[in-house]
Amino acid sequence: MVFTSHMDLALAEARAAAARGEVPVGAVLISPAGEVIARDGNRSRERADPSAHAEMLVIRAACAATGSERLPGHTLYVTLEPCAMCAAVIAAARIARLCYGASDPKSGGVAHGAKVFSHPQAHHVPEVLDGIGAVEAETLLKTFFATRR
Amino acid sequence: MVFTSHMDLALAEARAAAARGEVPVGAVLISPAGEVIARDGNRSRERADPSAHAEMLVIRAACAATGSERLPGHTLYVTLEPCAMCAAVIAAARIARLCYGASDPKSGGVAHGAKVFSHPQAHHVPEVLDGIGAVEAETLLKTFFATRR
Repeated sequence: MVFTSHMDLALAEARAAAARGEVPVGAVLISPAGEVIARDGNRSRERADPSAHAEMLVIRAACAATGSERLPGHTLYVTLEPCAMCAAVIAAARIARLCYGASDPKSGGVAHGAKVFSHPQAHHVPEVLDGIGAVEAETLLKTFFATRR
Repeated sequence: MVFTSHMDLALAEARAAAARGEVPVGAVLISPAGEVIARDGNRSRERADPSAHAEMLVIRAACAATGSERLPGHTLYVTLEPCAMCAAVIAAARIARLCYGASDPKSGGVAHGAKVFSHPQAHHVPEVLDGIGAVEAETLLKTFFATRR
């Protein structure tokens, strides 16, 4: 089941990221019991860390909290199609389900470009659901970039 | 120019990783001035972090040290072909040159599978040199897995 309330939390994290001057992408990680165990937005500028994407931050936080490199049975909500880096860490963490919002033809690595889950080198492939909350996620990104260019 | 002494440092990091019970992969990051600015090996088990690959750790360390998300002019030496996650963060960090040792048909994301640098969604493509110190890197990995299986 897809919970739009979880994507609403991810969208709130995306808005908070925009307010910090970061590309507005947010993510929420849900435990097998259905609880929100991590939520965050992009912090790559703030932390001077090219890996500090929303997905990476919530996966690292949840792994640290559980003391495990793997998060089987977990669901990740993210407002934008993950890039190749984030898709690969989602596979490495054995996340059961990925629900994402807007499509990312420019930098995406799930449905575009590297298509990380479409090769045998991805040792785990999550269930993927796309388009959830896509309109709001896309509007946030367009507004952010429109004011910067 | 490729410095085998830099790959020797990366191989030493790989051996240190094996001694910690981690998959033996090591990486070294070289500044544009030719100095070693970060060196590390895999720590994904130790840190319970699926992103704690050698490449990711040296990139994060160098970015933290320089206060920048980007490392133009830098060269990364790593003993094994990077996975899709590490290839993507290498692109994101704008690393100028990637020198790697052993080929990784099973999990690699540069010459295999996702081939992260071969798509327009990789906004930067480093110069890639492979096979440097490959025999020693491969021997380390084979010995490690032989004693574990």
